[in-house]
Amino acid sequence: MISKKMKPFVANNSAVRAMFEEGNKLREIYGADKVYDFSLGNPNVPAPKEVNEAIIDLAQHEDPVVLHGYMNNAGFEDVREAIAQSLNKRFGTSFGARNLIMTVGAASGLNILLKAILDPGDEVIAFAPYFVEYGNYVANYDGVVVEVEPDTETFQPNLEAFESKIGPKTKAVIVNTPHNPTGVVYSEETIRRLAAILEKKQEELGTVIYLISDEPYRELAYDGVEVPYLTKYYDNTLVGYSYSKSLSLPGERIGYVVIPDEADGAEELFEAATIANRINGSVNAPSLQQKVIARCLDCTVDLDFYDRNRKTLYEGLQAVGLECIKPQGAFYLFVKSPVPDEKEFVAKAKEYHILLVPGSSFACPGYVRLAYCVSYETIVNSLPAFAELMKNYE
Amino acid sequence: MISKKMKPFVANNSAVRAMFEEGNKLREIYGADKVYDFSLGNPNVPAPKEVNEAIIDLAQHEDPVVLHGYMNNAGFEDVREAIAQSLNKRFGTSFGARNLIMTVGAASGLNILLKAILDPGDEVIAFAPYFVEYGNYVANYDGVVVEVEPDTETFQPNLEAFESKIGPKTKAVIVNTPHNPTGVVYSEETIRRLAAILEKKQEELGTVIYLISDEPYRELAYDGVEVPYLTKYYDNTLVGYSYSKSLSLPGERIGYVVIPDEADGAEELFEAATIANRINGSVNAPSLQQKVIARCLDCTVDLDFYDRNRKTLYEGLQAVGLECIKPQGAFYLFVKSPVPDEKEFVAKAKEYHILLVPGSSFACPGYVRLAYCVSYETIVNSLPAFAELMKNYE
Repeated sequence: MISKKMKPFVANNSAVRAMFEEGNKLREIYGADKVYDFSLGNPNVPAPKEVNEAIIDLAQHEDPVVLHGYMNNAGFEDVREAIAQSLNKRFGTSFGARNLIMTVGAASGLNILLKAILDPGDEVIAFAPYFVEYGNYVANYDGVVVEVEPDTETFQPNLEAFESKIGPKTKAVIVNTPHNPTGVVYSEETIRRLAAILEKKQEELGTVIYLISDEPYRELAYDGVEVPYLTKYYDNTLVGYSYSKSLSLPGERIGYVVIPDEADGAEELFEAATIANRINGSVNAPSLQQKVIARCLDCTVDLDFYDRNRKTLYEGLQAVGLECIKPQGAFYLFVKSPVPDEKEFVAKAKEYHILLVPGSSFACPGYVRLAYCVSYETIVNSLPAFAELMKNYE
Repeated sequence: MISKKMKPFVANNSAVRAMFEEGNKLREIYGADKVYDFSLGNPNVPAPKEVNEAIIDLAQHEDPVVLHGYMNNAGFEDVREAIAQSLNKRFGTSFGARNLIMTVGAASGLNILLKAILDPGDEVIAFAPYFVEYGNYVANYDGVVVEVEPDTETFQPNLEAFESKIGPKTKAVIVNTPHNPTGVVYSEETIRRLAAILEKKQEELGTVIYLISDEPYRELAYDGVEVPYLTKYYDNTLVGYSYSKSLSLPGERIGYVVIPDEADGAEELFEAATIANRINGSVNAPSLQQKVIARCLDCTVDLDFYDRNRKTLYEGLQAVGLECIKPQGAFYLFVKSPVPDEKEFVAKAKEYHILLVPGSSFACPGYVRLAYCVSYETIVNSLPAFAELMKNYE
């Protein structure tokens, strides 16, 4: 009954569901506090109080026909202008409402950008490890993901390998910094080199290659590390942003894309992406949440909470002999499996009620991902279980 | 820079924008109260007060991590169950949470259903006149819309023509009742006959043909007319619903689809549509609005407002010699153009500051659409302008 394209998804989904249900079963048998579930990237820190204050104030005082009504498919102009000014102040950019489209989260933002630019067979480069949904988004428009193998020393993008993968069909490159699943923040040096390679290749090939910066974790950076703003390094940069993590609003589906004036064909691209926003069924980003985030531009969730988790888990895992790059952003640790087949390690960990995601899900086998957006107690209580688990590998 | 598929959209969009800007220019020159804009299907009645009350109460009392958080891609289970029970009470159906997927409005609902079922080249039948976006949604998945010519006597679907258009590639039929752009409500007799044809053709062809019922106007029915619930007449009915009009929440993007147990491959289809909801970028319907509508299941906007507009405009247009079917639902009138080329009539009307949409935009030339979701004053004040306009056709 279902389309050929959807068949493999449905087939695969039962595996995902099985994993999820296994977690639930463990919780049922042993109690939720005895299961250390690091598998989900679901923020557990509440939204800053300003969010609910804005919601209440808007519901009390804004004209409901405006607050809940249609607007331009690109979003409320005042909201887009407010975000643009906030970005300009922070990053020295020169955006206006004309450069922003409000979207149903970053997932929808990436989709409308890809729908706007991809013809069937066009290639999109992604650096392994990468978020598995990129492949699905690209396939939505019959594009092809070209993977660049990881640099497992630093988990910065492997730029030598990258250069060799760029060809005449390369339409876009997706990067994500701070990074899921490694927690790495791309250095300014990395970005300068990446931009130089793209400029050179555009020139050589006579094509336009868009750099799509997927930024749901932009505000989640620790140790005072700077997260460079990519449009300043490469003209053909497009940004997909989400408030899911920065304001803990993942269910609300609110984000935006930026198409800078400097991007090739910026106006046409803006129009195409706005139409894509309409016809893919979103129509526009949820209206109330647009108005809410415009009032919360200087807010973020409590980063100290994540930071404490990060340090405690990182140090705890090191102490039991697990290796990983110290993450500077997002809320993930990407840990080297003590055995080559990381799925074996994931299965063994489950015996100790520890739930992990295999690196294969991010095109990077041999590693496992831990999402530390869990309670501090879960982190602390999991460490003895990790110690027990690691006795299998002494 | 943009994809081949998007090029015609961008080209066509400048015409739409030109029309929109022309309206703004008229308003600037003559004043908003001297321009009679019937071109937009944008609700102008505020949401019932229960909506904002629910928003405030939820923001004050619900755990923010739940209220703004991720849930199953199909939506909050309690919300889906509450809607299912409400439908069961109203229509004698037997739905449960297992049959409902919360969506980013009906537009997204139709998209995930079409993504779940369409292979390239599959056909979807639509009865002219029909909402132009159906064509775009079907094209998103490389399907083909097969148009059935209108029955301009009644604007009920032309069932003789329909039967002849069903073939081995027919995967779905989209219907919309109460209907945009005619305001007609499909009679029970129509639906019984339509169902019988589909049953016969499924048997003959050995295929499954889904009837997709697009229901954004379900609650907007007048004169006590009944709007039959289609799943009761044909097992392979799928429903796409939206709260955009019933609760005046078009900007909030909240709706759902129903996949009844009786539909062929219901479970697989439910799973495919839920995955489509995730990978098309929606991920889930906005979380706060899900909780809001679950508290407003017995509310609708003030229908008397639309009803008064309907009667006044219908009678006023008849008085100046314009012909149309008396609409029993939605907030549209579909009026016969006094000249064969309705675009000529639209242009002439503009001279009298009356803004209409040509029937060609709904695959039904020779007619124009008026959306009467405007202020009552606009209706009353427009009538002398219509009288002047009609002097050109005496």
